[in-house]
Amino acid sequence: MTTYVYDFADGNKDLKDLLGGKGANLAEMTNLGLPVPPGFTITTQACQAYLQAGTEPDELAAEIGDHLARLEQKMGRRLGDPDDPLLVSVRSGAKFSMPGMMETVLNIGLNHESIRGLATQSDNERFAADSYRRLLSMFGSTVLHVDSELFSEAIDEAKKAKGTTADLDLDVDDLRALAQRYEKIIEEHTGRPFPQDPREQLDLAVRAVFDSWNTERAVLYRRSERIPEDLGTAVNVQAMVFGNRGMSSGSGVGFTRDPASGHQGVYGDYLANAQGEDVVAGIRNTVSLDDMAEMDPTSHDELMQIMATLENHYRDMCDIEFTVEQGKLWMLQTRVGKRTPEAAFRIAVHMADEGLITMDEALQRVTGQQLAQLMFPRFDDAARRDLLATGMNASPGAAVGKVVFDWATAVDWAEKGEDVILVRKETSPEDLHGMMVSKGILTSRGGKTSHAAVVARGMGRTCVCGAEALDVDARHGRFTVRGGPVIHEGDLISIDGTTGEIFAGAVPVADSHVVRYFEGQDVDEPLVDAVRRLMEHADTKRRLHVRTNADTPDDAARARRFGAEGIGLCRTEHMFLGDRRLLVEHLIVAESEEEQEAALAELLPLQRQDFTQILEAMDGLPVTIRLIDPPLHEFLPDYTELSVKMAVADVRGHRKRHERKLLDAVRRLHEQNPMLGLRGVRLGIVIPGLFVMQSRAVLEAAAARIKAGGDPRPEIMIPLVASVRELELVRTKILAVAREIQEAEGVELPVHIGTMIELPRAALTAEQIAPSAEFFSFGTNDLTQMTWGFSRDDVEAAFFSQYLESGVFPVSPFESIDQEGVGALVRRAAEAGRQARPDLHLGVCGEHGGDPESIHFFDDVGLDYVSCSPFRVPVARLEAGRSAIG
Amino acid sequence: MTTYVYDFADGNKDLKDLLGGKGANLAEMTNLGLPVPPGFTITTQACQAYLQAGTEPDELAAEIGDHLARLEQKMGRRLGDPDDPLLVSVRSGAKFSMPGMMETVLNIGLNHESIRGLATQSDNERFAADSYRRLLSMFGSTVLHVDSELFSEAIDEAKKAKGTTADLDLDVDDLRALAQRYEKIIEEHTGRPFPQDPREQLDLAVRAVFDSWNTERAVLYRRSERIPEDLGTAVNVQAMVFGNRGMSSGSGVGFTRDPASGHQGVYGDYLANAQGEDVVAGIRNTVSLDDMAEMDPTSHDELMQIMATLENHYRDMCDIEFTVEQGKLWMLQTRVGKRTPEAAFRIAVHMADEGLITMDEALQRVTGQQLAQLMFPRFDDAARRDLLATGMNASPGAAVGKVVFDWATAVDWAEKGEDVILVRKETSPEDLHGMMVSKGILTSRGGKTSHAAVVARGMGRTCVCGAEALDVDARHGRFTVRGGPVIHEGDLISIDGTTGEIFAGAVPVADSHVVRYFEGQDVDEPLVDAVRRLMEHADTKRRLHVRTNADTPDDAARARRFGAEGIGLCRTEHMFLGDRRLLVEHLIVAESEEEQEAALAELLPLQRQDFTQILEAMDGLPVTIRLIDPPLHEFLPDYTELSVKMAVADVRGHRKRHERKLLDAVRRLHEQNPMLGLRGVRLGIVIPGLFVMQSRAVLEAAAARIKAGGDPRPEIMIPLVASVRELELVRTKILAVAREIQEAEGVELPVHIGTMIELPRAALTAEQIAPSAEFFSFGTNDLTQMTWGFSRDDVEAAFFSQYLESGVFPVSPFESIDQEGVGALVRRAAEAGRQARPDLHLGVCGEHGGDPESIHFFDDVGLDYVSCSPFRVPVARLEAGRSAIG
Repeated sequence: MTTYVYDFADGNKDLKDLLGGKGANLAEMTNLGLPVPPGFTITTQACQAYLQAGTEPDELAAEIGDHLARLEQKMGRRLGDPDDPLLVSVRSGAKFSMPGMMETVLNIGLNHESIRGLATQSDNERFAADSYRRLLSMFGSTVLHVDSELFSEAIDEAKKAKGTTADLDLDVDDLRALAQRYEKIIEEHTGRPFPQDPREQLDLAVRAVFDSWNTERAVLYRRSERIPEDLGTAVNVQAMVFGNRGMSSGSGVGFTRDPASGHQGVYGDYLANAQGEDVVAGIRNTVSLDDMAEMDPTSHDELMQIMATLENHYRDMCDIEFTVEQGKLWMLQTRVGKRTPEAAFRIAVHMADEGLITMDEALQRVTGQQLAQLMFPRFDDAARRDLLATGMNASPGAAVGKVVFDWATAVDWAEKGEDVILVRKETSPEDLHGMMVSKGILTSRGGKTSHAAVVARGMGRTCVCGAEALDVDARHGRFTVRGGPVIHEGDLISIDGTTGEIFAGAVPVADSHVVRYFEGQDVDEPLVDAVRRLMEHADTKRRLHVRTNADTPDDAARARRFGAEGIGLCRTEHMFLGDRRLLVEHLIVAESEEEQEAALAELLPLQRQDFTQILEAMDGLPVTIRLIDPPLHEFLPDYTELSVKMAVADVRGHRKRHERKLLDAVRRLHEQNPMLGLRGVRLGIVIPGLFVMQSRAVLEAAAARIKAGGDPRPEIMIPLVASVRELELVRTKILAVAREIQEAEGVELPVHIGTMIELPRAALTAEQIAPSAEFFSFGTNDLTQMTWGFSRDDVEAAFFSQYLESGVFPVSPFESIDQEGVGALVRRAAEAGRQARPDLHLGVCGEHGGDPESIHFFDDVGLDYVSCSPFRVPVARLEAGRSAIG
Repeated sequence: MTTYVYDFADGNKDLKDLLGGKGANLAEMTNLGLPVPPGFTITTQACQAYLQAGTEPDELAAEIGDHLARLEQKMGRRLGDPDDPLLVSVRSGAKFSMPGMMETVLNIGLNHESIRGLATQSDNERFAADSYRRLLSMFGSTVLHVDSELFSEAIDEAKKAKGTTADLDLDVDDLRALAQRYEKIIEEHTGRPFPQDPREQLDLAVRAVFDSWNTERAVLYRRSERIPEDLGTAVNVQAMVFGNRGMSSGSGVGFTRDPASGHQGVYGDYLANAQGEDVVAGIRNTVSLDDMAEMDPTSHDELMQIMATLENHYRDMCDIEFTVEQGKLWMLQTRVGKRTPEAAFRIAVHMADEGLITMDEALQRVTGQQLAQLMFPRFDDAARRDLLATGMNASPGAAVGKVVFDWATAVDWAEKGEDVILVRKETSPEDLHGMMVSKGILTSRGGKTSHAAVVARGMGRTCVCGAEALDVDARHGRFTVRGGPVIHEGDLISIDGTTGEIFAGAVPVADSHVVRYFEGQDVDEPLVDAVRRLMEHADTKRRLHVRTNADTPDDAARARRFGAEGIGLCRTEHMFLGDRRLLVEHLIVAESEEEQEAALAELLPLQRQDFTQILEAMDGLPVTIRLIDPPLHEFLPDYTELSVKMAVADVRGHRKRHERKLLDAVRRLHEQNPMLGLRGVRLGIVIPGLFVMQSRAVLEAAAARIKAGGDPRPEIMIPLVASVRELELVRTKILAVAREIQEAEGVELPVHIGTMIELPRAALTAEQIAPSAEFFSFGTNDLTQMTWGFSRDDVEAAFFSQYLESGVFPVSPFESIDQEGVGALVRRAAEAGRQARPDLHLGVCGEHGGDPESIHFFDDVGLDYVSCSPFRVPVARLEAGRSAIG
C-alpha cells in the first residue's frame, strides 16, 4: 500500500521526488538533530493522485489523522484546544523550487474557541487576535479564493478610522473588529461562514495547496523553467512557531556564503519581533546577522554552529530560514542556495581548497551557461547609472542605442550607421527585419517565451521583455516610465539583458574580466583565478575535443587563444563576398565554359591567400574547410528587389543593360525553396570547376605552408551529401588535383577528405558513406531543418513562441539538439559509420556544438569533437569536462 | 579454383549470371538435344577479372586451349588446318540483352593457308575468298579498331571498277584482290599485318569482346536500361555454320508467337543463301516461315518441332535464330522473346488457357508498366498519318498542338487557350514554364536522361527527344526535317511519346480500349478480355488494398469504377481555389479574430457541401481527408509580381488601396522556403479555427449522409506532424467538435483521426505518435524531399539529368521510392508504429503509391494500402497482385 504521509523523522534529503525539496530538507535537518518544529509531509504522490482523480485518495484522511495525533502528542497540545491549542502551518513544497508560485497558510487551528487558549498561553490578547486575523485573510484568499484586495481595503479602513498607517497601532479591539469584518467578507463571498472546525481548516488548506499546482501562473512558470507538468507538489504540515512574540523573538534568512560574490562567511538578514513573511516583505529594516549577535548572542551562536553543520553536511552553500521564539531558535527551511555565476565559480574553488569537495565536484557545481554569462560584455560597474525600470532578462548582453518604435525606422537608422534599440509593446513577425538590425530589443509585455524573447535569443540579440512599468506609445514616438520620465524616439537608453535593467542614457560597456583572461591578458581577480582553475581541471578531464567555427585568420587566432584545438568549420562562402562579389557574378552569368574558367582562375589566387593565412593561424592543428555550400543566387541581388527596380526603370525609359542581364541570371537561378535547391555538393557536381578551384586553393596553400616550414593540416569537407556516389564523384576530382600539385610542388601533401552529415539520408546510409569519408561532421542545423521539416529563418518567428508555450518542444531544437529525433539520426550515423570504418573521425559543427546539453549528448554518442563559435569555445571546454566526469 | 570456360554441354539456362543470356540458352538447347553447332562459353567472371586487372586471368589461355582442343576433336577439324580448317564465331553475350551494343567476329581461323582448305572442302573458291574478306573487315574494325568506312570504301571502289553495285557480281579474283587491299589497310592503320595465327585471332577477338563492355555506347545503354556496371559479358566461341553456301542453305529468325499482337502461331523471316546478318540487315527481301516450308520442307518441319519444343520447355514465347547449311538445320540462339504490352497480356492468358502455365505465372508475365502503356490515349490506328521522323520515346502519350520554339510564346499561346508543342534543340531550366503549359515536348538532341526527358516524365507530359532528323532553327521559327518538309511556328504537329513518332498535322486521338473497359463500357476485344482476366486474378491474390487520391466527386467516382477501395488522400486545398479564393483572402488579411471567424463561417457550408458529395461518391468506403496543408500565401498573388505591379503604380501615381493591403499581407506571409514554412499542422495550431472549421465540415457532412441513409466513412488526416504533441493539440479540438455535433445531430459519428508521416522526425518517433493516431499515411513525396534535402520543383530541372547520368540514382527518387534512405524511414515507422499500436492502419498516399517497384516495397513492408491517382489504380491493383504471389 502506498504511504501518503511521512513524519519529518522518516524522510531524508534524497527523497525530493516524494517529499518535495522543502519536506526532504526539513526531514534531513530533523535527523541531524537540529531544532526543527515537528511536523509531517504529505507526498507528491498524494498530490498526483488527487490531481488525476479530482479527489483525495481514500486513505489520505486517516493517514493525516494518525500523523496529526502523533504531532499533538509530541507537542502536548491539540489542534483547536480551547485551553492550549496546537497551531500548524501548511506549506507547499515541490521537487523544484517555484518561488512565489505556490500556497502557504499559517495559524491553522485557530477559531473562536482556541483563540482564547492562545491568548492565555501567550499571555498576549493582541497577539492572539492578530494571529486569527492573519489566518482569516490568508485562508480567505488562498483557500477560499476571496479577492485579497478586500482584506487589504478593510485593514486600510480600520487604520484610517484610527488615524494611523501602521498595523502596530491597531489595538486588540481594533483587531477583533477587523476579524469580524473579515469573517463577514468571507461569508459574503463564499456563501458560508469561515470553517471553525480545525481539521476542516487543515483539509481545505491541503487541498488548496494541491490545487495551486495547476494555477495559470504555476503552469507558465514551469514551462519557462522546463519543469515537468506531472510532478505535483508535496504539502508540509508543521507546528507553528512565532517570531512575533516580542523583542526576544524574531525571524531571519541567511546564506552560508555570499550568494552574489561567493565571498566566504555567512550572509543574512534578521528582524526582531517579526514573522518570516515580514523579513521578505521588507516592511521594516532588517539587520545583518552580525548585528543579531549583539541582540541575541545565544541564538546567534547556535545559528552559526547550525549553518556550519549544514554546509559541512550538504557540502555546499546553503540558504536557511529561521525563527527565534522567545529566545528559542527554530530552523524552518534549508536548501542548497542559488547563487550568481561569479559566486558559483568562486564557491566551487573555495570549497575544493577547503577540502570540502573534490575538484571533480567543484567542476560539477558550475555550468557552461554560467561561464557564458560571465563572458558577456557588461555595463561598467564603476559607471553612473540611471535606472528607469526592470523587466525580464530575456536574452543576455549589454546594449546601448537610440530608441526607435517601429521596424522601418530601425532599418533606416541602422543603415545610416546608428545603433538603435527597438522598443515595442510586443513584437510580431513583421518586426523581424527591425530586430535584426537593432542592438537590443525592449518590450513592455510578454514573458521569456514571447515572440521578442525567442527571436532575440535565436539571433543572439540583447533583449529585455515584459518591462511592465513602461507605457509604450509608438504612435507618438515615446514611452513613459510609470511615475518617471518620458523617453522620446532618438533618446539614448541602455538595456542589460542579463539583469533585465533599463537605464537612461548611454552606460559605458566594459569587456568581461573573464574574456580578458581568455584573451591572454593578465587579470588579477579572484573570479578569474577560479575560472582558470576550473577550466584547467575540465581540460585534463575531458575526452571530447573542442574546435571552432572560424572563417578568418583573426577569428581563428582568437579561438586558438580561447583554447580551440583546430577549426571544425571554415565556411568558404564568406570569402566570396565584398570586392570578390563581382568575380562571382562573372562566374554566374558566364555564357560559356571559357568565361566560367576565367572567373574561377581569377578567384584561385585570392582563395589560396585566404587559406594560407588561416592555415598559418592554426598551424599544427586541423582545419576543416567546407567547400562552398549556399546556392549561387545568394551572391546576386534579391529577385523581388531587382524586379521592382527594373520595372520602375522600364516605366521611366531607362536602359540599364548590365542589370537586365543580371536580372536574367537572377530569374534563371531563382528557386522556390533555396534551402532545398541547387547548393552544396550539387553545385560541385553541376559546376565541377568550382570545387576543383577551391580544393586546388586549399592544397596549394598547404604546399606553400609546408615549404615555408609550417605544419598545415587541412581537411576538405563536402557539404550536403545525401548519397555516397555524390561524395565519390567529387572526391575523385580532388584526389586528382592533389596528385597534380604533389608532383608539381614536390611535397607530400596531407590530403584528408570527409563529408558533412546534414541530410537525413546521409545519416540513414552512413555505412555506405563512411568508406569514402575520412571524417563525418554533423551539420546539426540543416539536419534539424530537414528532420523537422522547417527552416530556421521562416518559422522561428512565425510559430516558435506558440510551440514553446504549448509544449511541442521545451526549447528550440535549433538551440539544444532534439535528442529523440535529430539525435537519433546522429547516433545511428555515428554507430553505423564507425562500424563500417573504425578509424572514422566524428565531429559536429552545427551551432549545437556550443550548447551545454547538446555537448553532453555528443559526448555520450562518442563523437571526437565539437566545433563552435570562438566565444563558445571555453563553454564547450567546460561542459566537455563536466560531461566526462558526469 | 575458378572455372573460366564452360562447354555448352556443361551449362544450362539458369546460369545467365555466369554464361550470359546467349551462352546459357545455347547450353540449354544443347542439353535438349537440339542441333546446336558445338562450342564453349568464356564466363562473365573471366571478363570481370580482365576488366579489373587490365589483363586476362593467368589460367584463361590454358582453359581456352583445352576446350578448343575438345571442340576440334568433336568437329574432326583443327583451327587453321590448311586442309580442312575449323572456323569459329566469337560473340558477346551478357546477362541482359544489349542489342547492337556488343561485338561479334565470324570466320575466326581463316588465314592464307586455311583458306585453301575451306575452298577445297566447300568446293567453292569464291565462298572461301569471300569468307576471308568478311573476316578481315569484321576483325579489322571490331578487334583492331580500324575505321570500318575504309573497308566500305574499298569494296565500293571494287564494285565501281567492275561497273556494278551488287557484292555478288564480284568474282573470286575481285574478292582476292579486295582481301589484299583490306590487309594493306589493316597494316597501314595498325602498324602490323593482320595476324595469321588462328589462336592469336581467337585471343584478340575474345579480348575485343571483353573491351566492348566499356565502350561509351554500351555504358550509356546500360545506364538508360538500369543494367549494373559490374556484370561484364560472357564470350561464346562456336563452330561456324554457313547459310550462304547456296540455295539449300539459308538463315532465319522467328518467334513462337506474334510478339506484336500476341496471336498464337509462329512468326518469322527466312532468307535463302544468306548469313544471319543479312536477314537482319534487310539487304534482300525475306520470306515468311510458311513460304520457307515450300522451299525446304524438311528443315521447316524440324524447325516447327524445335520451336514447339522450346516453347514447351521454356513455358514462354521464344525468339530464335537459325541457319540451314546445305539442308542441315542448326539452331544459333534462343531466348524468351520481347513483346509489346498487348502481346504480353494476350500471350500470358493464352498460355494459361493452354495449361502451359498457371494463372499466377501468367500474372507474373505482365507488368503495371505495360498496363499503363495500354491505358495511354493513342493516335487512332485507323487515321491517316504523315510521319515526319522518329525520335526517342521519352515520355508516353499522344499530343497534338501548334509548334512553338520558345517558352515565352508557349506561355502566351497557352494562356489564349491554344494547345502547343514546344520544340527545342534541347531544353534547359529556363524552359520550365513553357514545358508546363505545353501538351508535348519535342527535342532534336539528348537521350532519355536529357533535361527534356526527365522533366517531361516528371510532369507527365508527352515527350519525344533526340529526333536527330530535325534541324531546329528557333531564331527563324522553324524546323526542317532532313530531306523533308519545313515546319513553321504555328503549324500543327502530333507526337507519340510511346513510339517516338512525329507526324505532320493533327492525328486524331482515341481513348484506349482498356480504359474504356475500366470505365465500364462494353468492349469486345481479345486484349480487353486478357486484361480483365488478369486483373481479376490479381484482385483475388493481393493482400494490399488500393485506394485513390481524389479531390472531387468526379475523380472519386471514376477511381471507384477503376477499382479503388476508398480515397487515401483527399486534398482540401483545391477546395479553396476558384471563386472561394476571395474568402480565403479575407481570412488571411483579417485584422481581428472576429473577421477571421467570419471568413471561416462563410467557408464552412461550402466545405460541407464538398465533403458531402465526395462521401456520397465513396459511400461505404473509407475517405481520408487531409486538412489544409500548403502555406496560406499560395492563395495570394506572387510576391515579386505584386511588388513590381505596385512599384509601377507608385511611379504612375495610382492609388490601389486594396492591393496595397494585399501586398502587406503577402509580404508578411512571404517565406524564403515555403516548403519548410508555416504549413500543415503548424497552420492548424497558429490558426486553430481553420482545422476546426474543416473538421466540422467533414463531420457535419458525415452526419447529413447518415441521416440520408448513407454509410459515410471519413478519416481526418493531419499533415506535416513532427511530434506527437502537435497531433494531440489538434486531435483534442477535433474530438470536442465531434462530441458537439453528435449531441446536436443525435447521430453516432464515425470519428477516425490519423496523421501523415512525411517528416523524418515523425518516422523516427513513430512509437510516440502511434498511440494518438488511428492511422499513418506515408507522404512519400515530402518524405523524399526532406530525407534527400531537395525540393522536387527546384531541383528536378537543375540537376536530375546529371545525377541520373552519373549514377547517383538509377531513377528519380520522386518516381520510385528510394528504398535505402526514404524506405528505411518508412519501414522503421511502420514497425515501430505497429509495435506501439497493433491495430494501427498503414497506407501510403505519395505518388509512389502508383509506381510498380514501390508497390512491391510497400507490400513487403506490410502496409495495408497504397493510394494513387485514379488512372494508376488498375496499375496498382495489378502490381499488388503480382507482389502477393512474387
